[in-house]
Amino acid sequence: MKYIKDPREIEKRSFEIITKELGDRKFNHREDKIIKRVIHTTADFEYADLLEIHPEAIDKGIKALKDGSYIYTDTQMIKAGINKRKLSTLGGKVCNLVHDKEVVKEAKERGVTRSMVAIEKACDNKNIKIFAIGNAPTALFQLINLIKEGKAKPELIVGVPVGFVGAKESKDALMNINVPYIITKGRKGGSTVSAAIINALLYLI
Amino acid sequence: MKYIKDPREIEKRSFEIITKELGDRKFNHREDKIIKRVIHTTADFEYADLLEIHPEAIDKGIKALKDGSYIYTDTQMIKAGINKRKLSTLGGKVCNLVHDKEVVKEAKERGVTRSMVAIEKACDNKNIKIFAIGNAPTALFQLINLIKEGKAKPELIVGVPVGFVGAKESKDALMNINVPYIITKGRKGGSTVSAAIINALLYLI
Repeated sequence: MKYIKDPREIEKRSFEIITKELGDRKFNHREDKIIKRVIHTTADFEYADLLEIHPEAIDKGIKALKDGSYIYTDTQMIKAGINKRKLSTLGGKVCNLVHDKEVVKEAKERGVTRSMVAIEKACDNKNIKIFAIGNAPTALFQLINLIKEGKAKPELIVGVPVGFVGAKESKDALMNINVPYIITKGRKGGSTVSAAIINALLYLI
Repeated sequence: MKYIKDPREIEKRSFEIITKELGDRKFNHREDKIIKRVIHTTADFEYADLLEIHPEAIDKGIKALKDGSYIYTDTQMIKAGINKRKLSTLGGKVCNLVHDKEVVKEAKERGVTRSMVAIEKACDNKNIKIFAIGNAPTALFQLINLIKEGKAKPELIVGVPVGFVGAKESKDALMNINVPYIITKGRKGGSTVSAAIINALLYLI
């Protein structure tokens, strides 16, 4: 069977196809890089309409990454998907606490999601300036609560939880607090989308 | 803010919404579990049409899992997404070799993707009976070649690479060899879809 085997050639061809199929739709340079990388990751052109990027989000996100800030992710999948080699050259790292023993125990006792308890613990770590939420609306709701209570002050929230219970509502709530965000409107999103957005920011540096 | 915090309640409500919105569309019990879990993971109802399940795929997959077979995944993200606690109770485990030092070196020398070289190495491990490909069409093409050459004989291939270069073609090729498969037709798929399918099989046991 004949097929393209060079990974750089595959990526180049993919972005050419995406650009062509987006047709007349144009975005500014940096937003373009984020939107196309999400489409590249999902093969879903709906994301061109679903992505909403706060005017300060890209500047704040890039500055935080350049400063070596840590990224908190609500799933191990996002952590696995982020380009950690690139991140580490900037001094950054990725944290996730949903499998932390204390978190598991406390979540069971309180009858809430591990994601919620993990977010509370993450807010104690002042190196964490970026939150990438791709799965649990409860994590995003909890983060919003902590921000309102003055217990967290992230530079950027990538808020793309996916699903049918709370996902849309949590993203709507995020747009109403004063923190730069990148979201996917409605139900769609997920770990691959979240990792793609963080990687697009890393590749903009 | 008021929102549902109990993870079991969230999952239950989610599947109720999915069932309701699928309306008249009915699937047999086991296919239903797979299709709904993929929709749950992506919030994308297109997957009800895109998923194609070979008649022997579920039986062969469940038997292999019950026998403690290993699963090879083409990304670390799929590995992160699979319920490894459930898998380990059956004696199984998940393998991924794209970050293996030898694989990285050899891929560079040959100018091919790490995914391709990793698949070759995975086929040497006779405990690996299930392949879950969610990212690289090159990995799936290579696996098909190895099967044709008699060097691999998996019980099940979850073939859901995503993208614009080779993804559709690799899945079309998979349907033409004599191995049970679960695929997503066309361009869509990805690591979260792949993990959702494997987890649905685990939850059927």
